[in-house]
Amino acid sequence: MQNFVFHNPTKILFGKNTVPSIGNETVAFGNKVLLVYGNGSIKHNGIYDQVIQSLQDVGATISEHAGVQSNPILSHVHQGIKIAKENSCEVVCAVGGGSVIDEAKAICAGVPVQHDVWKFFTGKKSVKNPLPLTTVLTLAASGSEMNSGMVVTNDATLQKFGFANKHLFPKTSILDPACTFSVPADYTAYGAIDAVAHVLEFYFTTTEPYTPVQDRLMEGLVINAIESCNRVLEDPFNYSARAALMWTATLALNGLTGAGLGKIGFPMHMIEHSLSAFYNVPHGAGLSAVIPGWMRTQVKLHPKRFAQFAERVFNKYEGTVGETAYQGVAALTAWFEEVKAPTSLTSLKVPDSDIPGIAENAMALAKVWRMRDYSEEKITEILLECR
Amino acid sequence: MQNFVFHNPTKILFGKNTVPSIGNETVAFGNKVLLVYGNGSIKHNGIYDQVIQSLQDVGATISEHAGVQSNPILSHVHQGIKIAKENSCEVVCAVGGGSVIDEAKAICAGVPVQHDVWKFFTGKKSVKNPLPLTTVLTLAASGSEMNSGMVVTNDATLQKFGFANKHLFPKTSILDPACTFSVPADYTAYGAIDAVAHVLEFYFTTTEPYTPVQDRLMEGLVINAIESCNRVLEDPFNYSARAALMWTATLALNGLTGAGLGKIGFPMHMIEHSLSAFYNVPHGAGLSAVIPGWMRTQVKLHPKRFAQFAERVFNKYEGTVGETAYQGVAALTAWFEEVKAPTSLTSLKVPDSDIPGIAENAMALAKVWRMRDYSEEKITEILLECR
Repeated sequence: MQNFVFHNPTKILFGKNTVPSIGNETVAFGNKVLLVYGNGSIKHNGIYDQVIQSLQDVGATISEHAGVQSNPILSHVHQGIKIAKENSCEVVCAVGGGSVIDEAKAICAGVPVQHDVWKFFTGKKSVKNPLPLTTVLTLAASGSEMNSGMVVTNDATLQKFGFANKHLFPKTSILDPACTFSVPADYTAYGAIDAVAHVLEFYFTTTEPYTPVQDRLMEGLVINAIESCNRVLEDPFNYSARAALMWTATLALNGLTGAGLGKIGFPMHMIEHSLSAFYNVPHGAGLSAVIPGWMRTQVKLHPKRFAQFAERVFNKYEGTVGETAYQGVAALTAWFEEVKAPTSLTSLKVPDSDIPGIAENAMALAKVWRMRDYSEEKITEILLECR
Repeated sequence: MQNFVFHNPTKILFGKNTVPSIGNETVAFGNKVLLVYGNGSIKHNGIYDQVIQSLQDVGATISEHAGVQSNPILSHVHQGIKIAKENSCEVVCAVGGGSVIDEAKAICAGVPVQHDVWKFFTGKKSVKNPLPLTTVLTLAASGSEMNSGMVVTNDATLQKFGFANKHLFPKTSILDPACTFSVPADYTAYGAIDAVAHVLEFYFTTTEPYTPVQDRLMEGLVINAIESCNRVLEDPFNYSARAALMWTATLALNGLTGAGLGKIGFPMHMIEHSLSAFYNVPHGAGLSAVIPGWMRTQVKLHPKRFAQFAERVFNKYEGTVGETAYQGVAALTAWFEEVKAPTSLTSLKVPDSDIPGIAENAMALAKVWRMRDYSEEKITEILLECR
């Protein structure tokens, strides 16, 4: 096991009827609240009203910043920072999925500084004294509700970049599984796949030879993402299944899975970010198009690791280690198909002729993330395998 | 899944050569430090010198409170509080295993108040503004390094009581697996069994029917406690194995396993506390004497749950559900025997004639812990099964 620091100070309030706590949890940090949300779905399912009521009940002054899009964009972050500054907001409350929470984190980081917030994403500046953040989660997927990372697309340069900073953990996140009842089947599946992808990035990029505690944790989370997603798709209003999926997605990227694994990479995210930047596909859909191809390029290099995954997650025990290893990839791909997620660039209608441009774009992020083992050629090879 | 709050603010520094960070981590909360430790083993293995050096390097004033015994006692807690008050200590640094950390927590809670610290244990007073605590862990077992609970024996009344309070999470805990190299085989096994017991208490006392995320986490931790303990016993200086055991024990009682399980109990601890109070047996040894008997009384009541445990932890799949369920209990008992831990009251040389007294003592704790489904009769029945 490699040395690590684990320090996750986010307070999670999980369960039924927890949304009305958001007022108290938020004004603990200040009365002037910037409320950040997306394209208004929270106005249809009643969550918006609950949040406003709770904030008003505790005397908050609310400024609103709506319209965060899936794959949030920098120009909209700039608008949010402007509103927060104009209204002297002291705390940010994000109500939505990972995109909304990510944009809110960028706003929190950007308000106290004079320079462009994008400098945090390119590693040119480091976050200090951000505004505190509270969240109400409405989508089981990104884990942003209990971690310090975020991803934003620079709509001027079409770069989808991400970074993490220890000051950006939400103070409190409210996770009511009932808030996800109205998430449609496709986005439910994309969310589950996002959670699975977070685990796979750690699981298959660690070079640490002995991480048995983390392995069991990660394998359990993949099993749970799959099983709970399947249950939700059968019965979208099944509270227990929504709860299991929600908690799984949160635990899949709260720092625990990676603690002790040493240096890990996010190669699938690195490539996917270019797909969302160019085609604005949902993040989980982009991931599911990349994961099978990426895994096929890796399975030969780490057959034992892939075989362990196949055995423990999918109960595949037949054949040689190499055969078992492939069966795990095939089983995961089959599950993606089962939940109607794309499993190739072709299914996303990305033409072969776009591959060089995607590789070039992804390479820019690989440089920022210091993924030195990825060249534009290697990314191209993976993209060809993803077709 | 039941509603829950999860909020664990302890910062973990895990790995090789992390002990020298204790100075900085501690004086962040004040320069006047109360150093709490046990019976001097840290003076033989060099950890004491490292800690003193690190504290001196950052200009700390150190007051010492040594001699914490395994199963820490109230009169010694009182002494620690006195020393801390006399020296106006601002922060407590515990160097040791669960007993040392538990006693340090009691001291942290007791310093700012005028009343007897025991009132926290009997539920008559609630902790406010305790001194901050940092720790250097030297035994993989209790999980106290990353939770807010503690257990102390009132040596006047022979009551071994415990409680938890959200203000008592250590601020920082340093976990260097090399600090456990000198732990002998028996205490290594008792520590692993303590970690297993923490998982079993949650796993088998929850009445929540659907907790798949927590189940996989808990099953993984039991598997890892067993596997890493076995590796350590074969090769005590195996860093990876010590690391896996250490992290497993920490995760086994940091709040994550129980989050969402609803009301759970600590029946095995409740009974074991009386054994340590009367006979001063090591906590893990007391637990291993109680666990098999307690499980045998429960397996008929929850055969499916016990069968799931047998299947996923011990790969037992044969026979009926009821048969499988028993195979899990037998396999765990066999492992206790393998690591030379007691598996009955008889092996602890507790005579049958003591059983009524033990049951009476345990019942007092059952009342404090509000375990309404445990009567003195029921405890007696379990103790008879533990013979």
